[in-house]
Amino acid sequence: MAKSVNVAIIGSGVVGSAFINQLNNLKTAIKYNVVYLAKTSTEALYSKTYQPVNLATYQTEAPQPTLSLPDLVTFLKGASRPTILVDNTSSAAIADYYPTFIKEGISIATPNKKAFSSDLKVWNEIFSNSEAPNGGLVYHEATVGAGLPIIGPLRDLVTTGDKVEKIEGIFSGTLSYIFNEFSTTEKSDVKFSDVVKVAKKLGYTEPDPRDDLNGLDVARKVTILARISGFEVESPTSFPVESLIPKELENIESAAEFLEKLPNYDGDIQKIKDEAFAEKKTLRFVGKVDFKENKVSVEIGKYDFDHPFSSLKGSDNVVSIKTERYPNPLIIQGAGAGSEVTAHGVLADTLKIAERIAN
Amino acid sequence: MAKSVNVAIIGSGVVGSAFINQLNNLKTAIKYNVVYLAKTSTEALYSKTYQPVNLATYQTEAPQPTLSLPDLVTFLKGASRPTILVDNTSSAAIADYYPTFIKEGISIATPNKKAFSSDLKVWNEIFSNSEAPNGGLVYHEATVGAGLPIIGPLRDLVTTGDKVEKIEGIFSGTLSYIFNEFSTTEKSDVKFSDVVKVAKKLGYTEPDPRDDLNGLDVARKVTILARISGFEVESPTSFPVESLIPKELENIESAAEFLEKLPNYDGDIQKIKDEAFAEKKTLRFVGKVDFKENKVSVEIGKYDFDHPFSSLKGSDNVVSIKTERYPNPLIIQGAGAGSEVTAHGVLADTLKIAERIAN
Ligand SMILES: NC(=O)c1ccc[n+]([C@@H]2O[C@H](COP(=O)([O-])OP(=O)(O)OC[C@H]3O[C@@H](n4cnc5c(N)ncnc54)[C@H](OP(=O)(O)O)[C@@H]3O)[C@@H](O)[C@H]2O)c1
Ligand SMILES: NC(=O)c1ccc[n+]([C@@H]2O[C@H](COP(=O)([O-])OP(=O)(O)OC[C@H]3O[C@@H](n4cnc5c(N)ncnc54)[C@H](OP(=O)(O)O)[C@@H]3O)[C@@H](O)[C@H]2O)c1
Repeated sequence: MAKSVNVAIIGSGVVGSAFINQLNNLKTAIKYNVVYLAKTSTEALYSKTYQPVNLATYQTEAPQPTLSLPDLVTFLKGASRPTILVDNTSSAAIADYYPTFIKEGISIATPNKKAFSSDLKVWNEIFSNSEAPNGGLVYHEATVGAGLPIIGPLRDLVTTGDKVEKIEGIFSGTLSYIFNEFSTTEKSDVKFSDVVKVAKKLGYTEPDPRDDLNGLDVARKVTILARISGFEVESPTSFPVESLIPKELENIESAAEFLEKLPNYDGDIQKIKDEAFAEKKTLRFVGKVDFKENKVSVEIGKYDFDHPFSSLKGSDNVVSIKTERYPNPLIIQGAGAGSEVTAHGVLADTLKIAERIAN
Repeated sequence: MAKSVNVAIIGSGVVGSAFINQLNNLKTAIKYNVVYLAKTSTEALYSKTYQPVNLATYQTEAPQPTLSLPDLVTFLKGASRPTILVDNTSSAAIADYYPTFIKEGISIATPNKKAFSSDLKVWNEIFSNSEAPNGGLVYHEATVGAGLPIIGPLRDLVTTGDKVEKIEGIFSGTLSYIFNEFSTTEKSDVKFSDVVKVAKKLGYTEPDPRDDLNGLDVARKVTILARISGFEVESPTSFPVESLIPKELENIESAAEFLEKLPNYDGDIQKIKDEAFAEKKTLRFVGKVDFKENKVSVEIGKYDFDHPFSSLKGSDNVVSIKTERYPNPLIIQGAGAGSEVTAHGVLADTLKIAERIAN
């Protein structure tokens, strides 16, 4: 008889709906029974008898109210099969509940950064519960660089005894695009504020671009990579994060007014760019973990024209991992956002968990 | 009680000895019992009672003759635990025996390309035996790019439903070094034959550099990537492979005489390099899998100065994977040879197998 596993999916937004579609088209030996699907925070599909949800028609099926998290644990534990919880939300409430799910033997695959980049206590609780006998497994490749293979390979290096010396990377698609356009290896007079406006028009930024420019999303991702490498980062606010928002514009009410005033500050960043250009360098917005300097940071960095970061295109992410074994760093580059690549990262994790626990 | 798994290691050469050392220093929840260690093709350590071999002192322990492959299967199947065979040789005889090991439920982790890049029949036998109930698992990350995460991520993409459109890469450390030195983004007059001589002096080439320059090692790696992507390549000689050995020098007896005569042919490749330079391109020796052109090949390619392949340094490998989901390709770059990184790739595979089968 084919092996099988139960799956509970939370969220059917940008990533969630792509995930459901990819899972529905999957051809593998293991059978995946989706016994719970929360389409939104209020509507879910499930049955008391654990009949699998039909992933081809889930959008039109009549939903029930979602279960509370404690009730969800009870429901999932009532089934005879091992269960994978796929959290495709950005909910902090669900993230806070991971330690409980894992303690109860429910495994987790997720692109939701929250649990892994908040207090160190939560991180430690998650992984110690996971290592305990009968603890659930935790895979979260898509929390950094979406579907790019970063977290798995980094964990492999650390587990097999390598020592991370330095990680540097561009972890925001939005800020990648903005700096790739703003600071090039050919002389250009494009203004920072104009690039931000184009990025917003193209839909690359959050509704308020300050939510990208404050660097906090990058800080969360760097927190995750630092912790995997053995750097005990307390929280994403416990190290220096350079904000690209001029101080005077931080507290302005509307995004529109912010964008209107941003050109007044173009001179400052233009000066840094011109200085870098004179040294044959580009500017990039990078996250860094540096063991030699004992430092984690998010900041504007300068890179030689022939450095891989300088030839980055579009909104690609890139990470450079320098270790004892890779003194010439290991570099991974590609799209770091998008529904299909993110869903693929979550699905690949789901399959890896299933290969370990299905029966 | 902690989970455990049996391990049989074959080979303790460059990669094998690094693997043994990394395994000996491993700290994981799973216990690895090395029940068989073939130090060479004639000398092995093992005991009838499956007492674990001491990895700290294996070099000085008195060996027994190695077991024949059928006897090894019988020996390993006689133990009560699931077993991982780690083949750290380049033996074709052992590779030919993989289908049997796998059929008998023994899993394999290996950097040995032979089994995966010979006849398609062997490939199909390996993976169909592996998928059968109770078949052993097969992981071979280190057969392409050593410890770089290439095969795992490529399999993840394919399994989750992505379609590979094009793979291009530099898969030979030796030829990477030679072309990175020979063809640069700055004007240079360095001669091809001189670069080959320096590469040999630095120990980057095989004793006879023609074993690198014939492109066959690259053809084997491309065969593996093509097959994972769904391209049914019959064998590594069933597609065009450009040789860098001038026809007239193919049959010369000694490597010394070959190197002495190579300068006579510098003009030909210099011309190609100069033409490329005029177009602001570098030359690189690449393997390609192209679904649109329905073509697999190994050849000299030309790349724009700002293409990631042009800024490659030292003897790094690089692969660019263009898929439906990654129209802007996923790029992975770093050292593609060396004892520690290769051993790490094999050990990471061993751990992944153990996580699935240990009990
Ligand atoms: N989009 C990307 O390119 C990308 C890349 C990497 C990582 N990620 C991560 O992937 C996750 C999902 O992103 P997304 O772009 O798909 O977001 P999204 O489009 O906003 O979708 C979120 C979904 O989760 C649902 N949800 C929220 N809280 C819930 C709850 N408590 N119970 C049940 N459902 C709940 C939402 O329903 P409601 O409408 O009811 O709130 C919505 O369906 C996030 O953690 C994000 O950071 C995304
Ligand atoms: N070195 C690298 O950087 C690198 C990178 C990627 C992949 N690889 C692959 O890794 C594998 C090992 O490479 P290596 O550089 O470690 O080679 P190596 O130094 O030549 O070591 C090979 C070892 O295997 C032993 N061996 C050969 N046939 C055997 C048999 N039938 N039974 C038992 N032992 C046998 C050899 O012993 P004898 O002396 O008795 O033959 C030797 O100890 C190869 O497949 C290679 O292609 C290597």
